[in-house]
Amino acid sequence: MGIAHKMAKKQREISIAEFFEKNKQILGFDSLTKAMVVSVKEAVDNSLDACEEARILPDIFVKIESVGKDEYRITVEDNGPGIVRKNIPLVFGKLLYGSRFHAIRQSRGQQGIGISAVVLYGQLTTGKPARIISKIREEEVAYEIILSIDTKKNAPRVIKESPIIWNRDEGTHVEVTIRGRYTRGKQSVLEYLQQTAIVNPHAQITFIEPDGRKIIFKRATDTLPQPTREIKPHPYGIELGQLVNMVRSTRTYRLTSFLTTEFSRVSPKIAEEICKKAYLYGDMRPQELTIHEAKRLMEAFSKVKLMAPPTDCLSPIGENLIKKGLKNVLGSLRPGFYAKPITREPKVYGGNPFIVEVGLVYGGELPKDQPVRILRFANRVPLLYQQGACVITKAISSVDWRRYGLEQRGGEGIPVGPAIILVHVASTRVPFTSEAKEAIADVPEIREEIELALKSLGRQLKMFMIKKERKNKLSEKFFLVTKLLPEIARKSAEIVEKPIPPLEPVISKIMNVVWIDEDMEKIGKDEVKIKVNVTNFIPKELKFTLYGDYPVGSLLETDGSPGEDYVKWDVKIKPLERKVFYFRLGDAGGYTETNYYVDGINPSVVVGAEPLPGDWNIRLETMEEILEEEENEEEEVVEDIEEMEDVGDE
Amino acid sequence: MGIAHKMAKKQREISIAEFFEKNKQILGFDSLTKAMVVSVKEAVDNSLDACEEARILPDIFVKIESVGKDEYRITVEDNGPGIVRKNIPLVFGKLLYGSRFHAIRQSRGQQGIGISAVVLYGQLTTGKPARIISKIREEEVAYEIILSIDTKKNAPRVIKESPIIWNRDEGTHVEVTIRGRYTRGKQSVLEYLQQTAIVNPHAQITFIEPDGRKIIFKRATDTLPQPTREIKPHPYGIELGQLVNMVRSTRTYRLTSFLTTEFSRVSPKIAEEICKKAYLYGDMRPQELTIHEAKRLMEAFSKVKLMAPPTDCLSPIGENLIKKGLKNVLGSLRPGFYAKPITREPKVYGGNPFIVEVGLVYGGELPKDQPVRILRFANRVPLLYQQGACVITKAISSVDWRRYGLEQRGGEGIPVGPAIILVHVASTRVPFTSEAKEAIADVPEIREEIELALKSLGRQLKMFMIKKERKNKLSEKFFLVTKLLPEIARKSAEIVEKPIPPLEPVISKIMNVVWIDEDMEKIGKDEVKIKVNVTNFIPKELKFTLYGDYPVGSLLETDGSPGEDYVKWDVKIKPLERKVFYFRLGDAGGYTETNYYVDGINPSVVVGAEPLPGDWNIRLETMEEILEEEENEEEEVVEDIEEMEDVGDE
Repeated sequence: MGIAHKMAKKQREISIAEFFEKNKQILGFDSLTKAMVVSVKEAVDNSLDACEEARILPDIFVKIESVGKDEYRITVEDNGPGIVRKNIPLVFGKLLYGSRFHAIRQSRGQQGIGISAVVLYGQLTTGKPARIISKIREEEVAYEIILSIDTKKNAPRVIKESPIIWNRDEGTHVEVTIRGRYTRGKQSVLEYLQQTAIVNPHAQITFIEPDGRKIIFKRATDTLPQPTREIKPHPYGIELGQLVNMVRSTRTYRLTSFLTTEFSRVSPKIAEEICKKAYLYGDMRPQELTIHEAKRLMEAFSKVKLMAPPTDCLSPIGENLIKKGLKNVLGSLRPGFYAKPITREPKVYGGNPFIVEVGLVYGGELPKDQPVRILRFANRVPLLYQQGACVITKAISSVDWRRYGLEQRGGEGIPVGPAIILVHVASTRVPFTSEAKEAIADVPEIREEIELALKSLGRQLKMFMIKKERKNKLSEKFFLVTKLLPEIARKSAEIVEKPIPPLEPVISKIMNVVWIDEDMEKIGKDEVKIKVNVTNFIPKELKFTLYGDYPVGSLLETDGSPGEDYVKWDVKIKPLERKVFYFRLGDAGGYTETNYYVDGINPSVVVGAEPLPGDWNIRLETMEEILEEEENEEEEVVEDIEEMEDVGDE
Repeated sequence: MGIAHKMAKKQREISIAEFFEKNKQILGFDSLTKAMVVSVKEAVDNSLDACEEARILPDIFVKIESVGKDEYRITVEDNGPGIVRKNIPLVFGKLLYGSRFHAIRQSRGQQGIGISAVVLYGQLTTGKPARIISKIREEEVAYEIILSIDTKKNAPRVIKESPIIWNRDEGTHVEVTIRGRYTRGKQSVLEYLQQTAIVNPHAQITFIEPDGRKIIFKRATDTLPQPTREIKPHPYGIELGQLVNMVRSTRTYRLTSFLTTEFSRVSPKIAEEICKKAYLYGDMRPQELTIHEAKRLMEAFSKVKLMAPPTDCLSPIGENLIKKGLKNVLGSLRPGFYAKPITREPKVYGGNPFIVEVGLVYGGELPKDQPVRILRFANRVPLLYQQGACVITKAISSVDWRRYGLEQRGGEGIPVGPAIILVHVASTRVPFTSEAKEAIADVPEIREEIELALKSLGRQLKMFMIKKERKNKLSEKFFLVTKLLPEIARKSAEIVEKPIPPLEPVISKIMNVVWIDEDMEKIGKDEVKIKVNVTNFIPKELKFTLYGDYPVGSLLETDGSPGEDYVKWDVKIKPLERKVFYFRLGDAGGYTETNYYVDGINPSVVVGAEPLPGDWNIRLETMEEILEEEENEEEEVVEDIEEMEDVGDE
C-alpha cells in the first residue's frame, strides 16, 4: 500500500468534544487554579444572562466544596427562568449548542460552549457526571438530570432523569465536580465574583467558600440594566461570505426589501441608493445575486452614509459604575485624581456594533514604581487571565503615555506609575481570542477606539498635572508677592528713610489673576464642608459665573444655585476683595477635590478654575499655552520687583 | 408562552464551521496582514508534515498574487505523497478532520482545522472556492477539485471534480483566494518562511511575492530529521477521563496487558507493581474497572518509578540550528557572546512528552535600550503572533534576570538589554491557547522546564559578564604592575640614588596568575588566525593542559592537538615566560571569541580560561568567589606597592 493510502486510512473526523478533551487549555483549563475560576465563571455568566433575558433580578448562589485531594464540587443555583426539560441534556451535554449564538445582542455567553465545557472538564478529570435541576414556571415539578458527555459523538449521555419537588418557582441548579485548586487573592473565584458584583449591581451573589465562609455581595440596585434588544447586522464591515449566506436564505423577493429588512439602519431610500451605486435593479430577486454583484453591493455599502448601529443592543457599564469599580479596587488607598470616565460612541467591526468605555485613577497613595494596573471587562464580565494577549493591553501599550505624564520606556509597553486603568468593551459579538473568553483579539477597529478613549483620559491626566504644576508655581509667586514684597518695601523704605509706598496697585499689577482655591473640612464620618475662596488680584471690579462639580446625589447644602452635579455661583468682586462660598456633601468618603469652571471671564487670568464649557483638546491646548506664557512672565515678575526697588531707591 | 419556552425555541446546534465563520479571530484571522501569514503558514505546515511523514525531502512552492483590492490568491504546492481522491474534499472542506489528531507524535498540524479554516476564511471574505490538485504515486492522473464549505453542515461542497494530467509524480497544489494584505518586515510571510527555512534546513522553499520577486530558501542539508515515531500515552499526567475512555475501548482482557500494551514505559513487572499499589487484581478485565478503581490506578501511576517517555516521538531543533537561527536574526550585527544552547531532558505534561530547547546571544552590537527580542518556536514552526499570551514569554518574564546581569524592573517582565532569546517547545501535543496556534498555554510543567532552561542560560550569561569584569579588572592590575611599577622603581631609585632593585620576584608575587589571552587576525574574507598568549606570572614552573573551543568543522591548522570542536595544548612554562600557540579557522565570518579551559592547575590562578570540566553552577560559584577574593586582594596590591616603596626608601 502506498504512503498516501496509508495516510488516508488514518484520516477521520474529530468530534468537537474529543477536540476539547485533548485541548482543554483552549477552554481555559490549563491549570488547577484557573480551572476553578473558569468553571464558576461559565455557570454564573449563564445565570446572569438567563435572569436578565427573563427580566428577573438575579439571585445567585455559588458554593464550592472540597471532596477529595484537588477535587471540588461546584454548585451554582439561580432564580432564572429555568430550562425546558427536553433541552437540558443538550444545553449541558453538547458543545456548540445554545440560544445566543445567532442573536445579535450583547450577552455574556455567545458560543454555546461554556457550561458544557465545564461538564466535559469535570468528567475528564474526576470521572463524575454533572447534576442539573431546573424548573420552569409553567410546570408543577422540577427535573433532576444526571448526565455526562459522549465525547466521540459530542452528545449528552443521560444517566438519570426524574421529576422532583423543588422549593423554587423557577430556576436552575448545576453541580459539577472538577479537579481544581481553590485560592483567594489575585485571579481567584473571589476576585471574579467581586468584580462581577460591581459591574452587575442588580445581582445578589451569595458565595460559600470551601471552608464554609459565607460572603454575600449584596444587590445595590433594584433596577435591571436596560434590556438589550436583538438587532439585524449593520452593513458596515459585513463579510462577503456572510452577505452571500444572507441572500441565499432570505425570504424577501426584492433586493431593496432584503436590504431594509435584514439589515439595521437601511431605510427604503438608502436601499435604493445602495442598489443604484451597485448598478443593480432594486426589484431583482436577492437569491439571484452573483458573487460579483454581491461584491458590488458590498462596495456600495461603503459608499453610502449610514447611521451608527442602534445602541439598545448594547449595555455599557456607565460612568458611575466605572468609578465605583475603580474605587473598590483601590480599597483604602486614596488616589490623587479621578479622571472622568469616557464612554465612546458605538462603532462597528465586521458588522458588529461595539462600545468602548474607559476610566482612570492616578496618584495619591497608589504605588508609584510599578506598571499601571489594568482592569479589563467584556460585556460586563471581568477578564482575569491572558492580559498580555488582549487588545486592551495592546492598546494601552501602544499609546505614548510619556506625553500624558506617565513613565514609559521608549514610549511603548505598559506604562509605569501610580495609576489604574479600567477598560470595558461591550459588543454584540466580542471577538475573543479563544473559546476560553479570556482576551479580546487585536481587531483594528476595537483597538483604535480603545486608543482614542485612552488618549482622552491621558489628556485629562496631563491637564491634572499641568493644573497642579501651575498651582504650585503660582503659589510661589503668590507667596513672593503678598508676603515678600511688603517686607522688601518696608526694608527699602527704612533704608532710604521714606514712607512705604502703596503696594496694592503693584501687587495686583504683578499678580493680575483671580485666585480660586478651596478648604475642605471633614464633618463626621462621611460628610465634608467645602469653602471656596475667591480673591480678585485684578485692578478692576469683575463679574463672572463660577461652577463647582460634585458626585451626583451627594449635595446637602450650598449658598450657590445647585444643579444636578454642580453648584453655580454668580460672582461680583472688587479689586483685592476676597469672597468665600461654600457647599456641603454627604456620603463623600472618597471625595478629594472639586473641579471649578468659570464663564464670562477671560480664563487665562483665572487660577484654580477652567473655562466652561469646551472639549478637553481645546482646554489642554489653552492650558499649555497659559503655562508657557506664565513661564515667560516669570522673568517679568523679577523685572517688576526690580523696578519697584528702583522706585524705592529714588 | 412562558419565557423558558420562548428561550428554548432559540436553542439550537451550531456547526463548527458556523462557529468559526463568526469567530474567525480564534483561527488567527483578526487582521488583513495576519490573515495572509496564517493562510500561508497552514498550507506550508501541512506540506512539511506530509513530506516528512512520507520521508520525502520537501520542495515547496509558495506564490502570492494580487487579484483585487485587498484580495490575494495564495498558491502552495509540494512534492509530498498527495492525498487520495475521495479524502480531498474532507481534508480541505471539513473542519475537524485529519490524520494527526489521534497520533501521539510530534507534528506541525494536529487539530484537523488549519487548512480547511483557510478555505473557510477565503470563501467568507472573497466568496471564492478553493482549487486543489493532488496526485498520488499509484495513479496515472491527478485530480483537480474545486470546492467550498457548506458552513451550516460543516461539509465540503464540491463544485467541480475532474482528472487532469499533471507533470508531477506525486504532490499537492492548493489555491485559495483571501482578503488580506501583503507586507514585508516583521510578522510577515517572509519572516515566517525565513524562520521556517532555518529550523527546517532539509526543505527547499521557493517564494514568489506579489510583485513577482522570487526568493529561494535553499535546502541546506539532504538529511531529513529523524522520523518521529508514534508512541502510546505515558502514565504520568494522564487524566482520569482519558483512562476511562481507554479502558472502555481496549481490546485487551487483562488489566496488566492493558497497562503494558496501551501505555509507554510500562513493563510487565511495572504493570504488576501498579496493580498491587492500586489494590487491583492484574488479571481482572479492564472493561470492568469502576471510576473508583480507575482513580486508584491513577494514584498508583504516581507511586511507581517510570522511565521518561521515549524521545523518538520528538524532533528537537538541536544546538547547531538554534545557533544558526540566532545568527540569521542578528543579520550583520555582531553579538559579544553566544551562550551554549540548552536542550533539556524530555518531560511529560498530561501524558504528553515534550522537550524544551533554548538559546541566547548577548551584547556586542545588539541594541541596548530595548526589551530583549524573543524568538518562539513550537514543533519547528515559528510563532510570530500573540507573544504576550505565550508561556514562553511568561517564563522569560518570571525569571529574575537582574541576577544574570540584565536590566529588569522589579525583577519581573521582559528584561531590557542587548539580547535575543530563542525558545523551542517540541511536543506530541503542543497546548496552544487557541486554534490559531499562535501561543502556547501556561501549562505549569512546560513553564517550569522553560524557566530552568533559561536560568541555565542566565548562569552562562552571568559567567560571561563576570569573566569580562574580571578580565577588565585584572587588565588594570596588569597594567599597573607591569608598566607603572618599573617606572616607580626607576624614579625611586633615582631619588635615593641607589640601583633599581630586581622587580621580577615582586611582580610575580603581586600578580600570581597565569595570564591567557588571544589576538585574532583576519585573513581574507572568512578566515581567521588566532594566537593564544600564555604568560606565567607565578614564581614557579607550571605544567597544565589548555583547551580552546571553536565551531565544528572550521579548523584549518593548529600547533596543538585538534579535537572535534577544540584544540588541546600541553603547556609547560617557566616563571615570567610567555608562550604563544595558534590555530586557524575557515568559514569563520561571525567568529568573535574563543572559550579557553584549563586542566591540571588551580583554576583560581588562571586568568582568561575556566576550569574543565564542570557544570555551570559550580563554575559560576567558583567564579563569583574568585571575583570577590580579588576585590579583597586589591588593597593588598596597594600595600605591596607601598611596601616596595619602603624598600626603595631604605
